[in-house]
Amino acid sequence: MSFYEKHVFVCTNRRDPQNPKGSCANSGADEICQVFKKELAERGLRGTMRANSSGCLDQCAHGPTVVVYPEGVWYTIRTTAEAKEVIDEHLVNGRPVERLMLKPKK
Amino acid sequence: MSFYEKHVFVCTNRRDPQNPKGSCANSGADEICQVFKKELAERGLRGTMRANSSGCLDQCAHGPTVVVYPEGVWYTIRTTAEAKEVIDEHLVNGRPVERLMLKPKK
Repeated sequence: MSFYEKHVFVCTNRRDPQNPKGSCANSGADEICQVFKKELAERGLRGTMRANSSGCLDQCAHGPTVVVYPEGVWYTIRTTAEAKEVIDEHLVNGRPVERLMLKPKK
Repeated sequence: MSFYEKHVFVCTNRRDPQNPKGSCANSGADEICQVFKKELAERGLRGTMRANSSGCLDQCAHGPTVVVYPEGVWYTIRTTAEAKEVIDEHLVNGRPVERLMLKPKK
């Protein structure tokens, strides 16, 4: 029923750098979001998959937070290489990357 | 596996008002997003459901665009009353609101 086979949201929430909560934008999330957009386009996946920035996903302490729907798999992705690994392994090959996953709080 | 039973994303993309494509922000999407956040909090659903703003969901021509995951149901939601209807009927009672749904392009 959804428009996309995979829909990736990257938290790009920005707080004041002095804020003790931290924020994804201050940990490089804007660049991570751009990597997802660019790599999906380069793989010819626009139309079947989409990456979007989002507001605060409430996991700021962990670093740049990403959620992949419809399966609802959450990641902390700190580097361009990790982003590409999630695209190739999870999005393209259907094998979520356990090592980079965030686990639910409860 | 996901952190939330329902995760709502509201496109708040903003283009120049003169842009012929239009944009969700120029159709009242910021207010719609705030309604989702406020109403979920008031119903005591923070923690099990979440509403976030998102970048462009590529449905600008229709008006404020909302997608509900994990089920991937897409809506055009133009008014506060419509937002509350989706919260009560779909999010709380599990009955997606057919009348307000966007249909996939393909």
